[in-house]
Amino acid sequence: MIHPSAIISPRAQIGAGVSVGPYSIVHDNVVIGAGTTIGSHCEIGHPSALAEGRPLCIGDNSLIRSHSVFYEGSTFGERLITGHRVTVRELTVAGKNLQIGTLGDIQGHCEIGDYVRTHSNVHIGQKSKIHNFVWIFPYVVLTNDPHPPSDTCVGCEVRDHAVIATMSIVLPGVVVGEHSLVAAHSSVSRDVEAHSVVGGSPAKFLCPTSKIKLKDGTGRSAYPWTTHFSRGYPEEVVREWLSRIPEAGQN
Amino acid sequence: MIHPSAIISPRAQIGAGVSVGPYSIVHDNVVIGAGTTIGSHCEIGHPSALAEGRPLCIGDNSLIRSHSVFYEGSTFGERLITGHRVTVRELTVAGKNLQIGTLGDIQGHCEIGDYVRTHSNVHIGQKSKIHNFVWIFPYVVLTNDPHPPSDTCVGCEVRDHAVIATMSIVLPGVVVGEHSLVAAHSSVSRDVEAHSVVGGSPAKFLCPTSKIKLKDGTGRSAYPWTTHFSRGYPEEVVREWLSRIPEAGQN
Amino acid sequence: MIHPSAIISPRAQIGAGVSVGPYSIVHDNVVIGAGTTIGSHCEIGHPSALAEGRPLCIGDNSLIRSHSVFYEGSTFGERLITGHRVTVRELTVAGKNLQIGTLGDIQGHCEIGDYVRTHSNVHIGQKSKIHNFVWIFPYVVLTNDPHPPSDTCVGCEVRDHAVIATMSIVLPGVVVGEHSLVAAHSSVSRDVEAHSVVGGSPAKFLCPTSKIKLKDGTGRSAYPWTTHFSRGYPEEVVREWLSRIPEAGQN
Repeated sequence: MIHPSAIISPRAQIGAGVSVGPYSIVHDNVVIGAGTTIGSHCEIGHPSALAEGRPLCIGDNSLIRSHSVFYEGSTFGERLITGHRVTVRELTVAGKNLQIGTLGDIQGHCEIGDYVRTHSNVHIGQKSKIHNFVWIFPYVVLTNDPHPPSDTCVGCEVRDHAVIATMSIVLPGVVVGEHSLVAAHSSVSRDVEAHSVVGGSPAKFLCPTSKIKLKDGTGRSAYPWTTHFSRGYPEEVVREWLSRIPEAGQN
Repeated sequence: MIHPSAIISPRAQIGAGVSVGPYSIVHDNVVIGAGTTIGSHCEIGHPSALAEGRPLCIGDNSLIRSHSVFYEGSTFGERLITGHRVTVRELTVAGKNLQIGTLGDIQGHCEIGDYVRTHSNVHIGQKSKIHNFVWIFPYVVLTNDPHPPSDTCVGCEVRDHAVIATMSIVLPGVVVGEHSLVAAHSSVSRDVEAHSVVGGSPAKFLCPTSKIKLKDGTGRSAYPWTTHFSRGYPEEVVREWLSRIPEAGQN
Repeated sequence: MIHPSAIISPRAQIGAGVSVGPYSIVHDNVVIGAGTTIGSHCEIGHPSALAEGRPLCIGDNSLIRSHSVFYEGSTFGERLITGHRVTVRELTVAGKNLQIGTLGDIQGHCEIGDYVRTHSNVHIGQKSKIHNFVWIFPYVVLTNDPHPPSDTCVGCEVRDHAVIATMSIVLPGVVVGEHSLVAAHSSVSRDVEAHSVVGGSPAKFLCPTSKIKLKDGTGRSAYPWTTHFSRGYPEEVVREWLSRIPEAGQN
């Protein structure tokens, strides 16, 4: 399952059943969990002094698609799934079942929780902190320099279940609250309250998320999205969501 | 013309005169038309259960530039031309002479007509429908989820000769009319009338396209663009445009 | 230091101490300066009729990261540094110590000065002119067609020390003045005066740059940024900045 053209360092720790595609490279300081698949043309564990000697750890049963580049020094929980041409720099720590879309660019020094999904071409600046079950849609950028260029680096924070829609940016240090929604094409310069919708440039409060109705003919609220959307999450996670959300099944 | 380092499945159907660059991979379920050139470091016909067993078909005389990834299950007419690092997922059907710019990302399940041009870094969401002679400029996103994340998927429709300028997004289900123009950096939330210019976030009607004058000193209208621009189209296509457009040569 | 899997044309002129990574390709018409490192999976000197026979020249002590593609016909001064998956088309001339971020896309026919930094995913349209010490942040696009699609190509000009923040676009022919700042998520349709801040879509004058204070507790102005930021520039350059700027150390 290791393609003969793949270049694998004898020092890399490769779990059972790992597959590596043609023309991929796995460097020295790498630990790849059992059952993980790495596509073609990847570079895994790119050496970097900035990694401070720490290994790149990829959890079990992960899938890294082709042409991706991961540096040394980051740790990912089990079932990481990436699109193609992902870049991940040093010293990021992520939980389980992170999904990074095609062309995703994680600049390093980030904390990412469990079950986070970033769609295509999302750019996560250094020192970003992303909690659990967050959704970030295409071409979103999380920034970190309040007066670029400078030596000040203030990451954004995105809390549980928050959703940031397509082509929005979050300015340095902003906190995007739990279960909130940033509308598409917005520039978020102030903290976003939990369960609220903001939009525009600069983004303003638009309404509580409960005002947004599903366009599926049922008239139910679209948010919290955990009340109607469960694709790709394990059953026990969904059960816990539904048990914790009073509105579930009611609105 | 097949580089010795290219990995070509013996099951792939490769037309006469096809060229494949170094370190590229062509999988089993692929039909490549005669005279087509595939650059280096590509992956063509990436296997996928979502392709339902359908092959990837690339028309004659196409050019796929380096580091591109095409999944099984899509069909492209003759003279497809791509930039570098293009991604095309499953079950897209496209006409002839499609051009996809560098970093273009077609999410699959799309219908694309003839002579469509998308510039660099354009993201086409699932279920998008793009008619003929459409132009889409850099960093445009066609979206499809009205209240993300959800199981509702409503693609956009972009009609003949429409133009979407740089870094605009089209919201789910929006119809962009024939010969219309979406100004740069817009967010289009409502249908766009034919021959009209919209712009802003949310995009509003600005003027009829005929009000936009060419900045070439002639004072002619810039739209319909088919009256003055013909680079890269076959002569018979341009002749038909000019015969059908009353304004041609008049304004 | 040339990996055995790299494909190097015997006609390419490779300086002393050059390193080329696995699965990279160096074509015929290429001059690579001494001490330069090229990562894996690159294509350097991609042949093109549009290059008019000119070579690709990469200056001494450069670093081109993996999966990058450079066409024939451009010239870069010493110490070029790129991120991953950079694309550079024909006939660009750049000075020394240019930094191009990951996924950067330089469309060719551009002039770029010394010590320019472009962050991830910046798109530089044809005929752009970028002076010295410019900063361009992620997902910025410099455009060039005033009424797309057309045969008119009017590049933007970005002057010394100007800063363009994340996800902004500059419309065709616009001049961004010395030491000015374009705020994030802006669309710049008119010339920007030196030492001024503009923002919005369309971008309007917001304030002089001197009004923006550093968020480091010192109360100093954040601009000119050359008064407080020097990471990555040679000492003699920083000394010259400080000698020329009256405000340095005062505000």
